[in-house]
Parts: sequence; C-alpha cells; structure tokens
Amino acid sequence: MTAAPSDPVEPTPGVEPFDAVDVIRAKRDHGRLSVEQIDWVIDAYTRGVVVEEQMSALAMAIFLNGMERAEIARWTAAMIASGERMDFQALSKPTTDKHSTGGVGDKITLPLAPLVASYGVAVPQLSGRGLGHTGGTLDKLEAIPGWRAALTNEEMMRQLDEVGAVICAAGSGLAPADKKLYALRDVTGTVEAIPLIASSIMSKKIAEGTAALTLDVKTGAGAFMTEEADARELARTMVELGTDAGVRTVALLTDMSAPLGRTAGNALEVRESLEVLAGGGPADVVELTCALAREMLEAAGVREPDVEAALADGRAMDSWRAMIAAQGGEVDAPLPTAEHVEEFRAQESGVVTGLDAMGVGVAAWRLGAGRSRPGEAVQAAAGVEITAHIGDEVRAGDVLARLHTDTPERVARALEAIDGSWSLAAPGTAVPERRIVLDRLA
Amino acid sequence: MTAAPSDPVEPTPGVEPFDAVDVIRAKRDHGRLSVEQIDWVIDAYTRGVVVEEQMSALAMAIFLNGMERAEIARWTAAMIASGERMDFQALSKPTTDKHSTGGVGDKITLPLAPLVASYGVAVPQLSGRGLGHTGGTLDKLEAIPGWRAALTNEEMMRQLDEVGAVICAAGSGLAPADKKLYALRDVTGTVEAIPLIASSIMSKKIAEGTAALTLDVKTGAGAFMTEEADARELARTMVELGTDAGVRTVALLTDMSAPLGRTAGNALEVRESLEVLAGGGPADVVELTCALAREMLEAAGVREPDVEAALADGRAMDSWRAMIAAQGGEVDAPLPTAEHVEEFRAQESGVVTGLDAMGVGVAAWRLGAGRSRPGEAVQAAAGVEITAHIGDEVRAGDVLARLHTDTPERVARALEAIDGSWSLAAPGTAVPERRIVLDRLA
Repeated sequence: MTAAPSDPVEPTPGVEPFDAVDVIRAKRDHGRLSVEQIDWVIDAYTRGVVVEEQMSALAMAIFLNGMERAEIARWTAAMIASGERMDFQALSKPTTDKHSTGGVGDKITLPLAPLVASYGVAVPQLSGRGLGHTGGTLDKLEAIPGWRAALTNEEMMRQLDEVGAVICAAGSGLAPADKKLYALRDVTGTVEAIPLIASSIMSKKIAEGTAALTLDVKTGAGAFMTEEADARELARTMVELGTDAGVRTVALLTDMSAPLGRTAGNALEVRESLEVLAGGGPADVVELTCALAREMLEAAGVREPDVEAALADGRAMDSWRAMIAAQGGEVDAPLPTAEHVEEFRAQESGVVTGLDAMGVGVAAWRLGAGRSRPGEAVQAAAGVEITAHIGDEVRAGDVLARLHTDTPERVARALEAIDGSWSLAAPGTAVPERRIVLDRLA
Repeated sequence: MTAAPSDPVEPTPGVEPFDAVDVIRAKRDHGRLSVEQIDWVIDAYTRGVVVEEQMSALAMAIFLNGMERAEIARWTAAMIASGERMDFQALSKPTTDKHSTGGVGDKITLPLAPLVASYGVAVPQLSGRGLGHTGGTLDKLEAIPGWRAALTNEEMMRQLDEVGAVICAAGSGLAPADKKLYALRDVTGTVEAIPLIASSIMSKKIAEGTAALTLDVKTGAGAFMTEEADARELARTMVELGTDAGVRTVALLTDMSAPLGRTAGNALEVRESLEVLAGGGPADVVELTCALAREMLEAAGVREPDVEAALADGRAMDSWRAMIAAQGGEVDAPLPTAEHVEEFRAQESGVVTGLDAMGVGVAAWRLGAGRSRPGEAVQAAAGVEITAHIGDEVRAGDVLARLHTDTPERVARALEAIDGSWSLAAPGTAVPERRIVLDRLA
C-alpha cells in the first residue's frame, strides 16, 4: 500500500494561514497565486517555516508555468518586505541608479558612476562579486591597492552626499528572502526564470530606495540571456516592476555577442576604465558609458548633458579619484600585473568579423580572473587582453590576444576556451559597424 | 537570518559523473533523461549527494513535463537497485501478489489473501499504514488483539511456505530511494505525478520478487485518482512496468465513488471481512474480492477457480485463522468496540442513489480511525457504519449511519464531513446496479 495523498497535515489554526503544499499545488496546476499566498510564502520561507525543498518545488513550478504581472509585482514587494529599506530622500541631491545583467568585459560601472556623479547627482551602486564567466564589479575594484568594498549604511550615505558616487557591497539587510532564494535557485536549475530574475534584481533596487533606475539588459553569446526575445521580455518585466513601484525605470537592450572593449579581467578592466575616464578608451565602451550616463542623468532631471565633454575635460576623472580615495583606494598606486603573459596568434590572415564573448569570458575565468564557487579568491592581474577585435585586419602570426595569469598551469585550458573565438573573413571584406544599443524600453 | 540551502556536494572530478543541476535542467527543458543520468540521480540521491531541494525541483519538472515509458522503466529499476531484493523462487509454491491504490472501506486484502492462499498459492502482502481519509491494512489488522505487523524476512518466508498468506509491514530494505522520495513528494506537492506513483508502487513490487501481480486501480470521489482517465493511465503505466520487468501483471479499474461495503474503520472492517470469509457480507465486497482472487489465481496457474465456493465452505476462513494465528493474533478474541456511538439520521424520505466516499472517509478519519501525520496512533474501534447504502429505501428519521469513537468530542467535525454524503431520489425511483469492476488492462 502507498500512503494516501498529503491533505491531512492541516495548518495549526491561528498560527500559519496557509499550507505550503497548497501554494505549490496552486502554481503547479497553472493557478494564479493570491496576494495573501505570496506574502505568506515569502515571509514563511524567510522564517524557515516553508522549507528549502518546498521553495525549490515552487520555483520549478514558477519556472515552467510562469507568473502574471500582478503576481511578479507582489512577489517583489514581499521580498522587499522581508528586509530593511534604505531612504535616499534624505540626501541633498537626486539619486539615479543602474543595473547591468552582466557580460564579458563589462566594466561600464567603473567610468559610469563617477561620470554621472560629476553632475552633482548621487549614484549608489550596490554591487556583487563574479561567478563563472562574468566578472564582478567589486572584484575589479579590489585590484586597486587599499580599496575596500564593505561600507556601513552611514558611510555610504556620507559618501553619496560628499562624493556622489559609491560602488560597494550590498549589505545583507536588503531583501534577505532574495538572498536565500537566489542561493537555492543556483543549485536547483531554476535560475533562468524571467519572473524570478526580474523580482530578484528589482527587489534589491526598490528596497535601496532610488528614485530613478537605468537597466542595461544584455543579449548574445556572453550574456545571461542569449536570445534577444528573452532579454526583451526580462527588460519589459523589470521596467513594469520599477514603474509600478514608483521608480522611474528605463531599460537599454544591449549587445553582448562580443566582449565590451579589449579587456576581460580585474586589473585589466580597471586600466581600460581609466583610459575612458581620461577621454580615450575603446569606442564601444565609451558609447555604452555615454548612452547609460545620458539615461541616468535625464532621469535625475539633468537636461541634455554633454557627457562626452565631462569625460574629455577631466571632470569624470576627478570624481573617480574622489570615489576611490573615499573607500581607501590608492589612486596613484600601480595596478598589479601578471607574472606570466602568453600570446595567442592568428593561424591565417583576414578581417575579424566576430569575436565570441563566451570563449573570451571562459578563458579569463580559467586564467584566474573569476571563481567557480562563492568565496573563492580571484587573481587581480589575470585575464584576457584582446589585440584584434571586430573590424581589425590581421595577418597569420599576428597576436590576437594576450593571456595574463599568475599561474601558468592554467594557460592550456584557457587556450582551449579561447581557440575558435575569432571569426575571420577574406582580407578587405567590409565589416558592418557593431551596434551596441539595440533598443530602449521605458 | 535562517539557514542557507544545504550545501551542494560538488561533483569531485572522476567520482561523480554528473552534476545534479544538469539533470534537472534536462528534464526542465523537456528532454529525455538518459539511462546513465537516471541511474546516477537515484543512486546519488540515496547517498545524499543529490540533496533534497534538488530532487524536489526534479520531481516538479517530472510532474509537469512527464517521462517516457523507457525513462519510467529505468527510474523504477534504479529505485529497485537502491536496496535489497527478495526471492520467492525458493518457495515450493507459486507466488501471486496484489496492490490496491486505496479507497474508503477498502478491506479487500483481508478476505482476499487467505482466500487465494487456500488454493496452495503464496500471497505475500507487504502493506502500509493509513494516512488521511483512507485506512491502512496494517491498522485494520492491529485491531485484532495480539496481532503483530513486523516480521523478519525469515519469518515471512516460513509463513508463506507453511500458511501461504502473509500480510505484514514492508521492511526498510526494499527500494530505500523510494521511501526517501515518497516522503519528499508528500511535502512538495509532487505526489500526484503518474510516472512517480507508478514507479513508487512497482519498484517495491518488483523488488519483492513476485512472479504475478494483480493491481486494483481505483477511481472516483474516494480514490487517489478521482478522474477515470488518470486512473486508466496509471494502470496502463504500471502494467507496462510490470510486464517489462518480467512480472505477469494485470490491472482492474474499479469504482471508488462510494465506499466499499458498509464499514470504514479498523475493527469495523475486520468484522465485515469476517462476514465475507463466513460466506456472507456485502455484495460489492464479495464481488471485488472474487474478481481479484480469480485474477491472482489464474496468474499463478490455477484454472477457473470457484472462489465463491471457497468462501462458502470455510476453506478461506481456515486460511484466515492460520494466517492471523501465525502472527500472534487471538483469532477468537472479541474485537474492540467504541465507547460512544452516535446515530446520523435522514432528514427526508427517498431512495439512496449515491453515497460520497470522500465524505464517509473523512468522517471515519476524524472519528479517530485515521491519522493526520505518520506515526500518530489510531483508534481500533472508531469509524463509520453505513446503515443506508446505494439502492436502499429510507424514511425521514431513519438511521443512515452510526459513528463510532472513543472520543465523543470528535463527533461534531465528523458530522460536518458526512453531512450531505447521501444523494436521495423520490421513493420508488429505480437505481441502476453499481458496477464495481469498470475495466481490465493486461
């Protein structure tokens, strides 16, 4: 005999208003979760009454059966309610924030935050560390001697007031339900669900209390969402969530088929960011930095800002130096360099028509720039320096990339990953200019 | 903060051939699991390498995306391989087993096992306890003073050899993966998945080593599968699994819209079973007992057995007495009776056209015959005695049922459950005869 169905374990009257199994079944059977069910399930999960295996089954049911706009909004609100909220209304200036879904060589936050702050706007960037083939903003800044990621709320508010730009680690107080759920999704194959991704990102941004938010949603081989339709759906969902919560929210849909700029790796990307802040740097990085800066500034009430000028005349660089110094960074100290640099050369001649972001990202990760598990150390100097990008003409034997690492035994596996990442056409073939910003959703 | 999800045990290179997340993703994305993936995931789950929240996500993905016939067969085989197997080939007689998906008043195993054994056939009935509105065979037999459910494998084999019929608790050695998975499904809303139900039942039956198996798959209000199409699909899946594993398997699809017989409760059902073994008893119980007995005996090579005669002439009763005595039961001791009996009466006159099995089952459970959580004690004497069944003519004020319990404070909630369970038509209305066996699948 098998046992009967599980309907007998009834909630104790007056203690828990729902039974987790009923909530799971409702979503499993394509139902819509009620406001009360969502509020309860997130709160009870945070308290440990809804156990991990129950939330896991619910996450898979959400993955496969979806959630409606109203459900996602309430789910997000419930995650916000699980923790503390910040309040930037007390600042003497407007706040504007941005979030990127991440990609290879995506160092945009580094020049962007000080550029925007140079207009007298507060830019709170609560950031994370990298996992897998995409790097983390905090890992990059930690390549700067002395710089520290952890700030108290008071330190953060003071820096926003005095310097304008802050890039620091998100405290554990914002949306703790999301922190717990994210760790669970990571081990249960339920990461790539748009309602869960959107609510995860937006719960933290809304809890943080920004008035305006610009989203950089990436698509292509090196992005979290490789398909443009999925990225567009994610962008739309997040813009709706932000708007419904009273945050002025705009999303740019941007290309991540090839790496951004010519570097992937921590110190390497800081160096490239400094070139941009000095008025130079790769065109694609400058283009995206400026596009996002304009969105962030206009959302904060600055009309038609000439952001290219702020990069060219040193205002953005001054803001950078103040931001780094405020968090203990030695702004003039040399950045670490790798003990070993290996050159990767072209086998034939041609013009580069494509460069696979995933191949470059995995190579940088394997060289030591990224981590495989949360908590692992990363190498500050490791990474990939691209010497032949899309549109460049190469001859057989030319260097395509330099592989930087402190642990040369990692080079062989990095070469495996990067080999085949370049697409070459016959010399002289015209290469269409790469579009970085594919669309804007508001 | 509450605890993080259990730490994923990462595959050590060369030790674990798969990553649980990849297996979950494969099923999530509508893929077919390979033989190697299934063998690994069941084995790794038994070892604790695949953690509960991972198996929970996989179970939900299987629930929503299904499994093909070959996948279910391998899943079942992997669960069998997780534990020990029994071998009835060593017995001097053929074995024939049966399994019922459970229902209200389903005491059929009690007269059936000794009836079949009276033909010199071995009937091993590894049974369970009840949960919720359906009773458990062991709970019923434990109403007999002195009777014990736990036997060693050696005791069981000896009793099969000497008496023929054994009804005892399944040991923990058969399909331990199923035991673990069943407990997980119970709390994660993944019980009602046909591939998981079928493999759960069949893994234990195949591991047990029977040569022939008769399945009683019930449908209707009081059954696990209320819809006939679902019950038919479950029956078909189990017949395929048994056949593929070399077990002669037949399924009867039977009606569970109304209770079987006139009692639901432990001692009450033993008493009704004794009436059947004495050649009397309710027609529906006799009909189903005989239909199943014929299937079991023919599968064991007995041609056209006159099972009605074996009930009428006392052979089945002799076999019952030997079976109960072999397990310590005092066959002539009086059965326990309830301290309190409440009568439930008709409000109006009419002929009974329907009697809701679920209403009766929940009432019996609430009176103390069933349990809400594994491990809870049950009352031997509690339950419902039906005095007006389908086809009976009643007048306003007639007793429809008697509610037995040792704890009268439970009566009010039992009455709530049973109220409205009778459908009445105008006196004299013709009631079509109730069909018990709806179909046969082989």
